[in-house]
Amino acid sequence: MIRVFGHKSPDTDSTAAPILWAWHLNGSGREARPALLGEPNTEALFVLDRWSLERPEVIEAATGDVVVVDTNNPAELPDLADADVIGIIDHHRLVGGIETAGPIDVTIRPLACTVTVMAEMMGDERVMSAPEGVRGAALSAILSDTLEFRSPTTTPRDRDLAERLAEGLGVSIPDYAAEMFAAKSDVSAFSEAELIRMDSKEVEVGSLRFRVSVLETTSPEQILGRKDALLDAMPKVAVEDGLNEVLLFVVDILREEAHLLLSSDLSRGVAEKSFGAKAEGDVVVLPGVMSRKKQIIPALKA
Amino acid sequence: MIRVFGHKSPDTDSTAAPILWAWHLNGSGREARPALLGEPNTEALFVLDRWSLERPEVIEAATGDVVVVDTNNPAELPDLADADVIGIIDHHRLVGGIETAGPIDVTIRPLACTVTVMAEMMGDERVMSAPEGVRGAALSAILSDTLEFRSPTTTPRDRDLAERLAEGLGVSIPDYAAEMFAAKSDVSAFSEAELIRMDSKEVEVGSLRFRVSVLETTSPEQILGRKDALLDAMPKVAVEDGLNEVLLFVVDILREEAHLLLSSDLSRGVAEKSFGAKAEGDVVVLPGVMSRKKQIIPALKA
Repeated sequence: MIRVFGHKSPDTDSTAAPILWAWHLNGSGREARPALLGEPNTEALFVLDRWSLERPEVIEAATGDVVVVDTNNPAELPDLADADVIGIIDHHRLVGGIETAGPIDVTIRPLACTVTVMAEMMGDERVMSAPEGVRGAALSAILSDTLEFRSPTTTPRDRDLAERLAEGLGVSIPDYAAEMFAAKSDVSAFSEAELIRMDSKEVEVGSLRFRVSVLETTSPEQILGRKDALLDAMPKVAVEDGLNEVLLFVVDILREEAHLLLSSDLSRGVAEKSFGAKAEGDVVVLPGVMSRKKQIIPALKA
Repeated sequence: MIRVFGHKSPDTDSTAAPILWAWHLNGSGREARPALLGEPNTEALFVLDRWSLERPEVIEAATGDVVVVDTNNPAELPDLADADVIGIIDHHRLVGGIETAGPIDVTIRPLACTVTVMAEMMGDERVMSAPEGVRGAALSAILSDTLEFRSPTTTPRDRDLAERLAEGLGVSIPDYAAEMFAAKSDVSAFSEAELIRMDSKEVEVGSLRFRVSVLETTSPEQILGRKDALLDAMPKVAVEDGLNEVLLFVVDILREEAHLLLSSDLSRGVAEKSFGAKAEGDVVVLPGVMSRKKQIIPALKA
């Protein structure tokens, strides 16, 4: 039995892509099951509920045959020493950490969403033949990763597939995306530390190590209303995680801009050097900034 | 302009695959040129001559846009710091050494030959539409990597493609493969140290580091006739390269067996532990052993 899972702190793509690929493998005569490396975020929970999908099992350790999707980064995965990685399907930069004993299937494409990479592999017709719930999950992943086609990571391929899926499902993309983003934006149940770690990646820049956290929301006022508590928690999280600094970007999906919270001179320096922003006070608005992969990390590394 | 190249010490696959992929990219409107990281081996030289192909430029440094084929191992590549790796196409185990700034196209498949992976990507019809020389190179790569379908790495996919290519070219596979292997088997021009380094990979086993050298030949007597000089050169090469030991496998393509040369107690121990061979004297025959990737390295690592 093959386990298919995405990264820790599963978002919609890391929840939907395993569901789609496990369905595809089962249909190809290979027994497979999706799994999650942790509790899905509020948007992914909304998607599972909306499409009446069973929540994939949450696993802590990886054993047996596994297919890793939506990441190729060991830091975002459990120890793979007892697992037999038979495939990797991803759309992130090559991090170069996973080693295998023999040749395996690896497919990485510069597309916005893992689901779109899978469609390239199995063919659109096959995706369109999936049960309604699986197609709903696939559509959700593309809308989530592209922020309804607003993110600069969006390719025509992602958009075409999402539009075909939506048409087949009889779903209005603007209405459905608004529902999804509202679910993602409801973060009232989370502590500040949980918010900071929710959708974050560790990034090395020279000798510095940052936690680059992104909160995508259609109601930024909900998060910015907790600004003082977040600014207070950021240095504590950095110390706890052995990092130099937390960079917290609150991405306003509808206005297509990010609010970067500035908890120190170091983050003010980053805002100035990497984003050319005039960094006074404790928050700065970065117009047009929506994507960690395509905009934030390249700006930090430049 | 995109440079397409394989690994250092180019063999037939690392010569032919860049030619095929550069042709494909040019036909897709992206200017590309094949390149070689060193002089091609005698078999690859025969192939270039037989199909009247221009020898790709030999380059020492990688700059600009590059597509890496037939390897994903930085140890087999030049420094990539000044290059922009835009794609990797391979059929070896994931070594996990290449990092990129952004997401790129990576396609690795457990097939015998990089050319077959490329056919999976561009479609067989596209391969069959290539000029005669490109198709000749593609056929040669598959016959070389599969040792005319004798190697256990061979998949039905590799075999089907080679048979289609041969039919289109009006080539008899047994006759052509025999010519190719005769070219590869003529190693009279090389010193012992050159023979040892010609087709070799560094392999770590626990705390030991081996150079695992494979000489595929249809006339093993030509190499085994130089056994004493080879046994003499092996420890010297190991010291020069900072390794514990050279393991030299002379693969008899027609008899489907390997002769492992034993230059020390360490290599005798390896022969016994990894291959269950009774290792007395200075050479041992390992029946059925033909593939470093599928047989030798897994046996060493087990």
